[in-house]
Amino acid sequence: MARDIRIALVGFGNVGRRFAEKLRGPYARVLREHGLHARVTGIATAHHGIAVDTRGIELGRALRLVAGGPHRTRNGLEGANRPLDRLHHGRPLADVRAFIARVPADVLIEVTTLDPRSGRPAIDYVRQALGRGLHVITSNKGPVAFALGPLRRLAARKKTLLLHEGAVMDGTPVFNLGARVLSFRGTLNSTSNLVLSRMEEGTTASAALRLAQRLGIAEADPRHDLDGWDAAVKGCALANALMGAAVRPQQVRRTGMAHVTALEARRALRAGTRLRLVVRGERKDGRVRVRVAPERIPFGDPLAGSGPDAALVFETDLMGEIGVLERGASLDQTAYALVSDLLRIARER
Amino acid sequence: MARDIRIALVGFGNVGRRFAEKLRGPYARVLREHGLHARVTGIATAHHGIAVDTRGIELGRALRLVAGGPHRTRNGLEGANRPLDRLHHGRPLADVRAFIARVPADVLIEVTTLDPRSGRPAIDYVRQALGRGLHVITSNKGPVAFALGPLRRLAARKKTLLLHEGAVMDGTPVFNLGARVLSFRGTLNSTSNLVLSRMEEGTTASAALRLAQRLGIAEADPRHDLDGWDAAVKGCALANALMGAAVRPQQVRRTGMAHVTALEARRALRAGTRLRLVVRGERKDGRVRVRVAPERIPFGDPLAGSGPDAALVFETDLMGEIGVLERGASLDQTAYALVSDLLRIARER
Repeated sequence: MARDIRIALVGFGNVGRRFAEKLRGPYARVLREHGLHARVTGIATAHHGIAVDTRGIELGRALRLVAGGPHRTRNGLEGANRPLDRLHHGRPLADVRAFIARVPADVLIEVTTLDPRSGRPAIDYVRQALGRGLHVITSNKGPVAFALGPLRRLAARKKTLLLHEGAVMDGTPVFNLGARVLSFRGTLNSTSNLVLSRMEEGTTASAALRLAQRLGIAEADPRHDLDGWDAAVKGCALANALMGAAVRPQQVRRTGMAHVTALEARRALRAGTRLRLVVRGERKDGRVRVRVAPERIPFGDPLAGSGPDAALVFETDLMGEIGVLERGASLDQTAYALVSDLLRIARER
Repeated sequence: MARDIRIALVGFGNVGRRFAEKLRGPYARVLREHGLHARVTGIATAHHGIAVDTRGIELGRALRLVAGGPHRTRNGLEGANRPLDRLHHGRPLADVRAFIARVPADVLIEVTTLDPRSGRPAIDYVRQALGRGLHVITSNKGPVAFALGPLRRLAARKKTLLLHEGAVMDGTPVFNLGARVLSFRGTLNSTSNLVLSRMEEGTTASAALRLAQRLGIAEADPRHDLDGWDAAVKGCALANALMGAAVRPQQVRRTGMAHVTALEARRALRAGTRLRLVVRGERKDGRVRVRVAPERIPFGDPLAGSGPDAALVFETDLMGEIGVLERGASLDQTAYALVSDLLRIARER
């Protein structure tokens, strides 16, 4: 007998759609192997409408409906004909907050796009869902970097789980090591990894950045990649989740890579090193500090990979140093992280 | 209220002793944090005697007793005064098999030294313990490489767990990924990694091997490192545990590195590559094949690290390619793998 899990999706952009696509095929198989049957009972978006259906939303139809984008009605009113609304059953819901308050679900999966400077609105959605007693899975680094402490305390009070394996390195198991993390260092921003790799080969920074945008790995605003903000947010997420810290991205000592020249990158390479934008988390005088800066990494070090791949090395109390690499970061990996968190909820509850 | 877990240790060499040392301090803390209290109710060895004590063996005393090695009595009879026997309570036990048959325990931890060509006696001990209905944790790659299929079926029939996280890469979480593994490639033998790294710098193979022996990372018989046998055994362990294969080390197409010269290693380096002994597992025509051979790895690839560190890259069905690195392999990591398996038993049972 499969256990039934009711899922409410908040956000239906790239990650949410990939999750929904695969939930009909391979993810259903994985969940079934663990005795689970997942049913999406609601999808809420800011611009594509809101749908709730207790029997389970037909995901193929939802995907087809949003593929066209938000509709405009003849009299020009967007919203009057938002595509997902057509799948809705029951009283209309005014907005995402009303959805979170009422959707019949066991787990809320939060995959909205967020403001990288504030982590909103993801944090508010997560807080509201935990407050209602739902388990929450988020693929956003925002809640973990900006508000993990209060959200974890809320979850503990409500006896629910808050999981976020997809928030850093897209589901590579970094939040689930077991051992205590003493420090970490990583090249976590794919865009700067790729741009610096290309600059070593003589490409200009701007041409390399255009490539990263073409490949779809740059942030919506690539300044967040190059000025180290994305790395700082990820560093805070790791420090807060794994080292018991409460560091906010604003507190990170941050030097970006916007001023690194191709000449410097090539010079580093000739000296047997690679210039990479490194984020470090370390405990000093009892406090955890996170910093981001370009560093010269010797060949052979796990952080000296070429291309966009992210690398992370942990120094742990009981397992020594271990490294995790993510090759060819993709939507598939982020979407799968949601499944791995679902399995964990089923295991622990 | 802590749950009590009774542990029987078979083998009390380096790994077993490190586990016992740390079980008094940091491991007890980790287990306590998960609501567990571990008590070692028995230790069995081939040469240092056998002890059973239902109330829990005093580990500090056991460690001090074996530190001196097997005693010789005045009339020259070894065995009559085997040190652990002094901690034994109850009817004497003739040998390890009698111990496994009678020790009061929930989990048997198997950490004997084994014959790398046959995987024995570890396999027999694991089989006997599973047959008795005990959960089994082994840090030996032997049972996983040579006999995983039958042992798993036995465990399933007896409704017990067989765990082996320490068998490859010393507890770095490789057997616990979640996703399905389509193929893997790794530099899993620390000795050949170190020897090849040193040869790149101009050291001769024999001087580099002496270093590996001095550092304690070479196998008891270092031919098993250089001829690729150790890598083949680890490759089979991975293929059998993660790809549902039933490959035995004898079936591995294996080219060792004993004939690689320092000149070749340096030549590879000048060409922007590193010569490494690589083990690959791949599915071809429906069958899983494992092979071991020296390969040229381009800089920037996760397998191109320098020094003894092991690296492993998995191609998975749902998470893309992910890599795991172990830096500074140590006894601590192998011993901690036993704890992480204990936690898993507690979680699943």
